[in-house]
Amino acid sequence: MNTSSLNTAQWMAAHMHAVEQALSDWVCADVPAGLGDAMRYAVLDGGKRLRPLLVLAASESAGAAVLPRGAAMRAACAVELIHAYSLVHDDMPCMDNDVLRRGKPTVHVQYGQAQALLTGDALQALAFELLVPGDGSVDDALAAQLCRRLALAAGGQGMAGGQAIDLASVGLALNQSELEHMHRLKTGALLQGCVLMGAACGQVPPRALPHLADYGHRLGLAFQVVDDVLDVVSDTATLGKTAGKDADQDKPTFVSLLGLEKAQTYANDLLTQAQAALVRSELPNVAPLHALADLVGGRRH
Amino acid sequence: MNTSSLNTAQWMAAHMHAVEQALSDWVCADVPAGLGDAMRYAVLDGGKRLRPLLVLAASESAGAAVLPRGAAMRAACAVELIHAYSLVHDDMPCMDNDVLRRGKPTVHVQYGQAQALLTGDALQALAFELLVPGDGSVDDALAAQLCRRLALAAGGQGMAGGQAIDLASVGLALNQSELEHMHRLKTGALLQGCVLMGAACGQVPPRALPHLADYGHRLGLAFQVVDDVLDVVSDTATLGKTAGKDADQDKPTFVSLLGLEKAQTYANDLLTQAQAALVRSELPNVAPLHALADLVGGRRH
Repeated sequence: MNTSSLNTAQWMAAHMHAVEQALSDWVCADVPAGLGDAMRYAVLDGGKRLRPLLVLAASESAGAAVLPRGAAMRAACAVELIHAYSLVHDDMPCMDNDVLRRGKPTVHVQYGQAQALLTGDALQALAFELLVPGDGSVDDALAAQLCRRLALAAGGQGMAGGQAIDLASVGLALNQSELEHMHRLKTGALLQGCVLMGAACGQVPPRALPHLADYGHRLGLAFQVVDDVLDVVSDTATLGKTAGKDADQDKPTFVSLLGLEKAQTYANDLLTQAQAALVRSELPNVAPLHALADLVGGRRH
Repeated sequence: MNTSSLNTAQWMAAHMHAVEQALSDWVCADVPAGLGDAMRYAVLDGGKRLRPLLVLAASESAGAAVLPRGAAMRAACAVELIHAYSLVHDDMPCMDNDVLRRGKPTVHVQYGQAQALLTGDALQALAFELLVPGDGSVDDALAAQLCRRLALAAGGQGMAGGQAIDLASVGLALNQSELEHMHRLKTGALLQGCVLMGAACGQVPPRALPHLADYGHRLGLAFQVVDDVLDVVSDTATLGKTAGKDADQDKPTFVSLLGLEKAQTYANDLLTQAQAALVRSELPNVAPLHALADLVGGRRH
């Protein structure tokens, strides 16, 4: 391990720790009737925290420091809460009907379907609450911008819309353009949103934004291609969720469309292009964003 | 009908019309894969629009005018979207399992459970999106404040938390204090939130806020007492939703606790107290808020 990768590993470890601490502080068990417990169960322990790390890395790309309870950490945790709520709802019997997530029973298995539904709903509201602390510690213009970006990334023109396309696509033969459109909404919008929200917190100069957006777009697409590959080549124990589900459910994937080898090549190409966009941004501190692209390419679950 | 009530009726009709128009403009069918259609189905045609009218009435109580695409109309529609999403999720088989709402098949009956789940999720995101238009037309400080108030009213310490208490209370003998705590969260937080969000849009002076908050609290509680009464005395056709469900589901209600007559008296007392709080606010234009309390007391569905 050279100095650069050692520094990157240290960056990852320190920021993962800070994110876990912040999530644990902000997702409180004092929400009534066991709902707080279910919310903590859904969020804490076991996530890769790719989205929060993207927010923090983007916010630091212009050289700013991340403060423990500052806007960037709030944005980082807010996107993770949106991601966590989507997993809770997505695992429910009326959606993917999955019983395992991050190596644990899914929320509806553990707490019942009604509580799982409310858990997701409350996590979405908490995400927006985090962005506006109400104590003057986050600038109003920034808080408003973060709320707008998060709402757009999560809603009908983003994640929820992509899930609706996914639902409607089971058993259909999508072409690559249609498949990419679905994923651009379903997972890409929130991943790209992470980068843009982080950039807003870090006051990245406007000329660098299109390059960061390009990085976020390609990273988001690569993430999904890798996900499709892993669903085929990995096993349930390694994934922490049920493997082989896409084929079982007759879902269109990049593997079913391109074949395994070409899908792997496509993911690598996208990540190389994402890292090239970072170079074009001319930002002073893109090493963490570069490393996160490597992480997406190399992830085992 | 005297001049005052005629004016009130005109106010109601004009503002209802404006709310319907704004909701129809903002809940767009262009959300993909039929999700936009399901969102419109959940929101348009048939609601009483009590919450939006409360926002608008509170915003006008200090004498401000409501603009068609201004902050108050955005807040009015945002709270209605939160209310609509909660109904969609609440009607699902894992929750109340209801098939009829506003006289129509519920969303999961019409579109399937998976789409209903996504419909609610997307409506919640859209509520926050509306509050931050991103075109500079709403002041950032106001947008941030509205997002915070809405998130608190909708989340674990508000509506979702109250629903969790409700779930946990089936078959239990709650006392009046416990029952009121549940409803303060489940319906009261959003109704009071309407008044406070409207007040923020209308720049109500700080000295009047505690009185408006008191009005909102009592109105919210009265709303629930009336709801419990109607569940007993009304029929399904009039309600537009299944009547007699509380007793069927062995849910604690104000009627089961106080008896029918005392519950009716309690609702009337709360509404009289709410209207007295308006007088104490010394705001120049409380007639619409006064009329909305009458509406809550006299509503047939």
